[in-house]
Amino acid sequence: MTKKSLITGGAGFIGSHLSRRLLDAGHEVTVMDNLFTGTKANIYDLLENPRFTFILHDVTQPFWGQFDEIYNLACPASPIHYQRNPVETIKTSFLGMMNVLELALKTKARVFHTSTSEIYGDPDVHPQPESYWGNVNTIGTRSCYDEGKRAAETLCADYYREYNVDVRMIRIFNTYGPNMHPQDGRVISNFIMQALRNKDITLYGDGLQTRSFQYVDDLVNAVLLFMALEPKKVKAFFAKQAMSVPVINVGNPGEYTIKQLAQETLRQLPECKSQLVYEALPKDDPKRRKPDIALAQALLGWTPEVPLREGLSRTIAYFRGVK
Amino acid sequence: MTKKSLITGGAGFIGSHLSRRLLDAGHEVTVMDNLFTGTKANIYDLLENPRFTFILHDVTQPFWGQFDEIYNLACPASPIHYQRNPVETIKTSFLGMMNVLELALKTKARVFHTSTSEIYGDPDVHPQPESYWGNVNTIGTRSCYDEGKRAAETLCADYYREYNVDVRMIRIFNTYGPNMHPQDGRVISNFIMQALRNKDITLYGDGLQTRSFQYVDDLVNAVLLFMALEPKKVKAFFAKQAMSVPVINVGNPGEYTIKQLAQETLRQLPECKSQLVYEALPKDDPKRRKPDIALAQALLGWTPEVPLREGLSRTIAYFRGVK
Repeated sequence: MTKKSLITGGAGFIGSHLSRRLLDAGHEVTVMDNLFTGTKANIYDLLENPRFTFILHDVTQPFWGQFDEIYNLACPASPIHYQRNPVETIKTSFLGMMNVLELALKTKARVFHTSTSEIYGDPDVHPQPESYWGNVNTIGTRSCYDEGKRAAETLCADYYREYNVDVRMIRIFNTYGPNMHPQDGRVISNFIMQALRNKDITLYGDGLQTRSFQYVDDLVNAVLLFMALEPKKVKAFFAKQAMSVPVINVGNPGEYTIKQLAQETLRQLPECKSQLVYEALPKDDPKRRKPDIALAQALLGWTPEVPLREGLSRTIAYFRGVK
Repeated sequence: MTKKSLITGGAGFIGSHLSRRLLDAGHEVTVMDNLFTGTKANIYDLLENPRFTFILHDVTQPFWGQFDEIYNLACPASPIHYQRNPVETIKTSFLGMMNVLELALKTKARVFHTSTSEIYGDPDVHPQPESYWGNVNTIGTRSCYDEGKRAAETLCADYYREYNVDVRMIRIFNTYGPNMHPQDGRVISNFIMQALRNKDITLYGDGLQTRSFQYVDDLVNAVLLFMALEPKKVKAFFAKQAMSVPVINVGNPGEYTIKQLAQETLRQLPECKSQLVYEALPKDDPKRRKPDIALAQALLGWTPEVPLREGLSRTIAYFRGVK
């Protein structure tokens, strides 16, 4: 059945992949984006598809439309972007979520919300299950994103419990792939761009902090599987986990140190002359984060499939085109 | 010098005490309240003071006015109230804060924000210093309050750092006294009302969880001292603590078990025939919470002065009048 889908932040990295997949499946897709970090280039090839619509709009302002599903992806997600205007970041997270949920309430749309592993902050439990409450500073320089995303989860939980809005949330762990913003300051885009330009590769701290890296196709698979489930099945599954709200971690539990990532990047670019250099660790930077994906596996029969080597190779190919 | 002060939530428990103290000091006081949990009875005696103005308004809607100071106290604060409409609770906390900060930005008003020990959640550090990040569930039934208040702190921090809004925050620990809502479900009002009506006194769990109880006059002293400080002094003090944002704990570190409180209440009401009864502990109820008030003592030269016995006696006298 053809669905009408709205994707807020659909011109961003993840949103553009999701839009393409929904169009490929035959659905009608409307992308709403303020183009603050998203870009028309990410969705350029979709513009002439008759089932595709682009709306230039900021989610912090109310909007209207009759959709079967709303995917809420609007929010700058990399520190370099979200710290540029912290007040706008937390407003986007909170007011955007509020506007999406209000519209869903009135139109009975199903809602998908992209939460984030950042709600776990600098975790003292490892790996992080969904039941972990997190360790987040309310007044630090990352708080505009972390606390904004935490409050958005709370809004989802309350609209779900109080008003029966059919909300599903995924806490997304580090994700990478084509259409990442080359200047988003995140480790994979940094390393590839530095290597492609033969600049030194910057590691923070000793480079031994670990990260999990999920290829974007794996994430989009999980999103589509989650949104395809019947509400009854969702409710029953989470009731069995003694969770009152549908939220799952989605990420790749494979752990790599930042240094390993740098080395693999250089291995794939044998012509590159970059050296590894070390700088001080930024404040509040999480030392280690790894998803516990047992719930996603049980609920969706999903598992990440793209190994880092392959995902990195596809991402490097993309960055070669935009550098 | 006479100041113009706006107090959001000024018809509530703490707001009504603060309004009275500011009027007594000769200032002009405007109370804004939607009367959801606040009540006209709390400010009835102020209405005929020519320096007092009451505005019936909800802080989630923008407002305007030229004030020297804005005290943001608007938010239902007891679980029984804030869980009645969780979506409104988190909106009040976030949108109210946003509206206050926007007004302050435009009018250069100094802002006081009432944060709360609830931002520490169910703490695993004891007592809690301001540097502790807390342990809070994003999707539980208390989250609408806890996460709303956390996000409000983040807003304050970002308006302070980005826009130089002169914000000061106090994380208020359990506070009691006259003008508490008799049906707010909090332990002191519960116990006194139950005892005055010769009903059984309900303890949750084994009654051995501890709380700190601060008499409202002690809190108001701290608020007024904090707001009287020169911005330069505030900035210098927190810079010395390596804190980028002015926030202090204010509470009474004296620790009592809930059972001791029940026993002291009964001791002060010798005519009462109530018995202690035990019920199951509500979900997410913090087991133990006690403020570290070293910063408040150093910054303000303040210390709580009213012992539990005396505060309880004044509160019982108030509740005799309203029961």
